[in-house]
Amino acid sequence: MTIRVLIWHEHRHEQTNKLVQRLYPKGMDGALKKGFAGHKEFKVDTARLDDDAEHGLSQKRLNETDVLIWWGHAAHGDVKDHIVERVAKRVYEGMGLIVLHSGHYSKIFKRLMGTPCSLKWREAGENERVWIINPNHPIAEGLPEQIFIEHEEMYGEPFSIPEPLETVMISWFEGGEVFRSGVTYRRGAGNVFYFRPGHEAYPTYHNKQVLQVIRNATRWAYNPAKPWKGIHPAPNVPHDKAPVPLKVKGPTLHAPGEEGFK
Amino acid sequence: MTIRVLIWHEHRHEQTNKLVQRLYPKGMDGALKKGFAGHKEFKVDTARLDDDAEHGLSQKRLNETDVLIWWGHAAHGDVKDHIVERVAKRVYEGMGLIVLHSGHYSKIFKRLMGTPCSLKWREAGENERVWIINPNHPIAEGLPEQIFIEHEEMYGEPFSIPEPLETVMISWFEGGEVFRSGVTYRRGAGNVFYFRPGHEAYPTYHNKQVLQVIRNATRWAYNPAKPWKGIHPAPNVPHDKAPVPLKVKGPTLHAPGEEGFK
Amino acid sequence: MTIRVLIWHEHRHEQTNKLVQRLYPKGMDGALKKGFAGHKEFKVDTARLDDDAEHGLSQKRLNETDVLIWWGHAAHGDVKDHIVERVAKRVYEGMGLIVLHSGHYSKIFKRLMGTPCSLKWREAGENERVWIINPNHPIAEGLPEQIFIEHEEMYGEPFSIPEPLETVMISWFEGGEVFRSGVTYRRGAGNVFYFRPGHEAYPTYHNKQVLQVIRNATRWAYNPAKPWKGIHPAPNVPHDKAPVPLKVKGPTLHAPGEEGFK
Amino acid sequence: MTIRVLIWHEHRHEQTNKLVQRLYPKGMDGALKKGFAGHKEFKVDTARLDDDAEHGLSQKRLNETDVLIWWGHAAHGDVKDHIVERVAKRVYEGMGLIVLHSGHYSKIFKRLMGTPCSLKWREAGENERVWIINPNHPIAEGLPEQIFIEHEEMYGEPFSIPEPLETVMISWFEGGEVFRSGVTYRRGAGNVFYFRPGHEAYPTYHNKQVLQVIRNATRWAYNPAKPWKGIHPAPNVPHDKAPVPLKVKGPTLHAPGEEGFK
Repeated sequence: MTIRVLIWHEHRHEQTNKLVQRLYPKGMDGALKKGFAGHKEFKVDTARLDDDAEHGLSQKRLNETDVLIWWGHAAHGDVKDHIVERVAKRVYEGMGLIVLHSGHYSKIFKRLMGTPCSLKWREAGENERVWIINPNHPIAEGLPEQIFIEHEEMYGEPFSIPEPLETVMISWFEGGEVFRSGVTYRRGAGNVFYFRPGHEAYPTYHNKQVLQVIRNATRWAYNPAKPWKGIHPAPNVPHDKAPVPLKVKGPTLHAPGEEGFK
Repeated sequence: MTIRVLIWHEHRHEQTNKLVQRLYPKGMDGALKKGFAGHKEFKVDTARLDDDAEHGLSQKRLNETDVLIWWGHAAHGDVKDHIVERVAKRVYEGMGLIVLHSGHYSKIFKRLMGTPCSLKWREAGENERVWIINPNHPIAEGLPEQIFIEHEEMYGEPFSIPEPLETVMISWFEGGEVFRSGVTYRRGAGNVFYFRPGHEAYPTYHNKQVLQVIRNATRWAYNPAKPWKGIHPAPNVPHDKAPVPLKVKGPTLHAPGEEGFK
Repeated sequence: MTIRVLIWHEHRHEQTNKLVQRLYPKGMDGALKKGFAGHKEFKVDTARLDDDAEHGLSQKRLNETDVLIWWGHAAHGDVKDHIVERVAKRVYEGMGLIVLHSGHYSKIFKRLMGTPCSLKWREAGENERVWIINPNHPIAEGLPEQIFIEHEEMYGEPFSIPEPLETVMISWFEGGEVFRSGVTYRRGAGNVFYFRPGHEAYPTYHNKQVLQVIRNATRWAYNPAKPWKGIHPAPNVPHDKAPVPLKVKGPTLHAPGEEGFK
Repeated sequence: MTIRVLIWHEHRHEQTNKLVQRLYPKGMDGALKKGFAGHKEFKVDTARLDDDAEHGLSQKRLNETDVLIWWGHAAHGDVKDHIVERVAKRVYEGMGLIVLHSGHYSKIFKRLMGTPCSLKWREAGENERVWIINPNHPIAEGLPEQIFIEHEEMYGEPFSIPEPLETVMISWFEGGEVFRSGVTYRRGAGNVFYFRPGHEAYPTYHNKQVLQVIRNATRWAYNPAKPWKGIHPAPNVPHDKAPVPLKVKGPTLHAPGEEGFK
């Protein structure tokens, strides 16, 4: 079994901000990719917003991706809507999706959640303690009871997401706030995980425990089933092919064989 | 306490199809409105797709609506995207939303669910039995253990929605299928209920038990809290106004007072 | 509408501990009852562990209770098992239950959750900030974004409860921990709310916001439906009384009219 | 990786009822075990109610079990309470549990659910159609959209269980009822799956698709993490060992080093 991972990164701050350049000389995607090094069950590639007209997310490439990892921040608005729809469809079919940090405001995350996904924030380099509240969850494998991060951006509740399938992690911030930092969802056949840490002004993606969460989540999100192509249409089941064959009894609006409205 | 209800109806079939005209001479919205007659806690109005350029859904009108009921089918695509966003925002702020039958494919329902919301269907006038599986839920108030509907369109699983907050009703169909016919969600401060019955070729909205479900759901969906305006932005909490005041400790990406990216 | 509330209190510490006596001269139940004063939709009574052989929880009294509030700590083991079962049955029928603080380890809460309900704790008089993460939930009515409590006992995750129906509040503690402080469940027809604050060594139940949460939760937990008596048995539906009458087709284990095994 | 499976079977009907003897000459547990034949990732053993004074469920044996499968019916009451507690504790630590058919009324299932787990039933040999509503769930691997079972006992809603983590399957019965036939829960670190089919008067456990569900569920329920021993106690975290070390600020009820109440 090989899990085909694609790390998608906005990669804009690295081009304009010296601080981010210094922290992530190979890009944040480079640091994230390094987190998979030596773990042979993964085959990891990267894609960037400005790679090409499709942001490196051609249909073919998505079809060959088992789990997509997403980091974006300043340029959410530059991601094209039809590419977002393409990614959403692959999630419905079964591609896993891991959304990181400021990706809470990405088009794809808001699209899949159906809510604003807003929150409070503060950039003060304060301590974050990510508590594992569900310690035997696959995403928590090998981790201690809390991940301590010396400097991080604060994200505070209320985080306007739907009630999660499972809340796996909750963060404590030095400045007094709390945040649901690790939450799972299923959308169609696709497993979705949101993970909070990862502000570009701090070396968070060099933290081994943070990288382990992302690796664990990738394993968890992987759905080995064949793509659920049947999720897209709304097929008609004719009366004579019903599990219990029927005669049509009432009036009908649709002519036989007609497609439904969409 | 008065609950301000707005019944939104596509009202296209009534103009072109004799069968629908005969069943619903005052429109399906007229039949739905009649279901509230004599229940004084409700103030009920209606709006239609072709009422005006905003489909009868001006911001002012939505602001004055506590619970919106939605029926659409053939013309989902004619509902303008910015009106859909406007409705979604009011749901996040606390407006209740009840989506009926073919509304499973409406833009607003798919927008709030974040999934395809597809299903199987058959128009054969078969028997439907809507079983109440959560009998003391407010939406089930006064109802027997099942609602028998002699002729209905079949909707069959898989219904590609997110795992519901609560599954309240499951339908049995004569032809052999099952369907989650009554499911609840919360999106921001807004309570959302999807209710399956209501094909336009049958007199379903003259059925007293069906109308009672819709009335119960309207009461359930009503959120008396003040609109949650704070759900829309992602406010910054400066370091010196943190619950536990902080000194900025690490480097920063944002200049003081700067707005976050969106 | 009147909501009949019964506040059940262990009332042991008040008899042995001077500190608790001084803080709660009329018992913690007295302070909790005062929180309902002036709110005429409630009719509030109290019961104590040592009231009588049934801990003040006769079947008659429970039948006349809409919402039961539960505080216990040192004497969980003294609550008789058959009384716990009696309370559980009333919850299934629709009685609301609000479990406070150390009640996480009460027999009734563990019985209804089906899990250990364990946690970490520390008694250091530290600051607690109870964040409302679902601000328009009925239980949050009228409250600010956080409830600040100057001195409280710490409870820390992992809190071994089932995934809640809704997580309404999360606490931040000065010493670095977090805790899901307000969580909802449904058990049968009964609404259940666990609320964390309330260590007997501090004046928490004189805090107006804490009392407002408990009052809100009582309103939320109230289920006006008739008791769901049908939840207790597993009734047989004979083949000739099936919704779709049947002939018996295969072999049978049970003789006609026989009761099922239990 | 080897998954150590223990099939626990009441095995009473096989001793008294000719029909069951004929259908299951090696016991229902024998038929269930055969379902794992040829699948080398499983190591399967069986245990029976009357094996010994501990019903074949010694602590040692449970410690060496990854997933326990449970079938009981007429003799739920004969299972000793302390053995039920032992099983529950292993589930909390991470042992998977699959409860079959009439096991809905077993002590262990009711213990873990915290609800009555009652339902309606009829023994008429009618058709059951188990619809997969979550087709790419690991438990549905390799299965068609429905499992057709020619003769089965009917179980009907309301099934008084807590709202499931996921509803994976819903059954349609010829006589007109519906039932949530495949539902998942997590209790502590233990994955729990309830699966409906399996009346002892029919050859259901010779049905290949039924056996495949059970095999899939066994794989899904397997939690490779080390047992979560920490779930049982409620440990104290002294003030000077808090993540953020504290001075004790208020009065205290507990003397230093004292254990909490339970």
